Amino acid sequence: MPSRARWSEAAMNDTIRLFGLGLGPGHPDYMTVRARRVLETADRLVHFCKRGRRGNARSIADAVVGANHEREIALVYPVTTEIPADHPDYAAALNPFYEAAAAQLLAETEAGRTVAVLCEGDPFFYGSFMHLWWRLKDRVSIEVVPAVSGMSGAWTRAGAPITWGDDVLTVLPGTLSEAELSRRLSCTDAAVVMKLGRNLPKVRRALATAGLLERAIYVERATMTEERIVPLPELTEDFDAPYFSLVIVPGQGRRV
Amino acid sequence: MPSRARWSEAAMNDTIRLFGLGLGPGHPDYMTVRARRVLETADRLVHFCKRGRRGNARSIADAVVGANHEREIALVYPVTTEIPADHPDYAAALNPFYEAAAAQLLAETEAGRTVAVLCEGDPFFYGSFMHLWWRLKDRVSIEVVPAVSGMSGAWTRAGAPITWGDDVLTVLPGTLSEAELSRRLSCTDAAVVMKLGRNLPKVRRALATAGLLERAIYVERATMTEERIVPLPELTEDFDAPYFSLVIVPGQGRRV
Repeated sequence: MPSRARWSEAAMNDTIRLFGLGLGPGHPDYMTVRARRVLETADRLVHFCKRGRRGNARSIADAVVGANHEREIALVYPVTTEIPADHPDYAAALNPFYEAAAAQLLAETEAGRTVAVLCEGDPFFYGSFMHLWWRLKDRVSIEVVPAVSGMSGAWTRAGAPITWGDDVLTVLPGTLSEAELSRRLSCTDAAVVMKLGRNLPKVRRALATAGLLERAIYVERATMTEERIVPLPELTEDFDAPYFSLVIVPGQGRRV
Repeated sequence: MPSRARWSEAAMNDTIRLFGLGLGPGHPDYMTVRARRVLETADRLVHFCKRGRRGNARSIADAVVGANHEREIALVYPVTTEIPADHPDYAAALNPFYEAAAAQLLAETEAGRTVAVLCEGDPFFYGSFMHLWWRLKDRVSIEVVPAVSGMSGAWTRAGAPITWGDDVLTVLPGTLSEAELSRRLSCTDAAVVMKLGRNLPKVRRALATAGLLERAIYVERATMTEERIVPLPELTEDFDAPYFSLVIVPGQGRRV
């Protein structure tokens, strides 16, 4: 747990070599002042992506650093959603990938370069960067730059304050079982369901079981040009949701 | 639910008169680019505060607009924590306060001025601004600027990624009863307890009952100069926590 003094000194003394750089929900104006500065000055810009695609975080950075850039390092996931994340093959594929990525970034910092790992949303909230962070945290000085979360972009753009008064908020990955989703949704005031993709039909059934379907709002790419915000009951049953979409259920707590 | 196009056009056509302006957790570099721009240009800067004190949000703005400013409007709460929020006297005092504040801000916008209500953290996440928003949303064009939440500032500065893999995160107000707190803490992977203040001893007991005390981290004024981050078990039992402090319990989910 670093003290503030250490952070400020490190930044001033230029001893930080690795950044977990939160870029926010998508709109470039929703980057923090700090994130923008690091993006403009880092020697290497690292992004995770699926084979043959640019990562979302890299796309968010376009508005600041342009579409092509020689500073760039792409970390290509060996698998993404083809294997369930709780299957042994998933860890067997991802573990060496993260190990190699950590070694590569460590080598960059040892060569004296500053390395910024671009993160969609907030780095310490379900972020891939965390898997690099715990491998490197005792070997190199790391600054994590917090960001506006994707869920905050979603409830803001939906015009739906998420928690009022004493509301309890539950954040759930859509990867949980239908039974667990409906059980947890049944006993919360407000909810956010992340990681939708192919889980959407299951999430929808769980929301219906919990009596929350009518209040649920589907949000895709909030704050981006391709933003889509729809009351969930209005989506067709076979709607094809991307992985980075989410459902919000705003609370109804105390208004004075 | 405004579309992106409407937002962009409104901003460009200068038709937005009222802003719910999220300023983030405290450090001025953690403001978004958008928030900073609105802060610099709005005709009126509004902040909530306790009688005789400056509001936290106003203090965050100091780095950009200075300590004293003729653009300023202070909205002084008639009560804060002297009356429990679920007591009828609380609503009886707060309702006319918010009504009068809404009327005052509406008059400012009708006089052609842009009005920014400064919000600590994220406006739509337990924000006082929400009580103005629902009174004014059908009467004036409002832009809500999302922000890095206080809890994100906390887990970032504590060096404690909050959710891994399929972790469930529960956000709880410390105002809940001890029984409800411990019940909800017992069935979550990760937790954030907000609104501590005098609720801290109760929250601590609930964390102990749920078996989470050893993992709990107390965070006060994260990202600010006066930041304090301490493992909760190390605090003395009679520790005096401010209202705007929180406890985080990081998840321990899947690492690959």
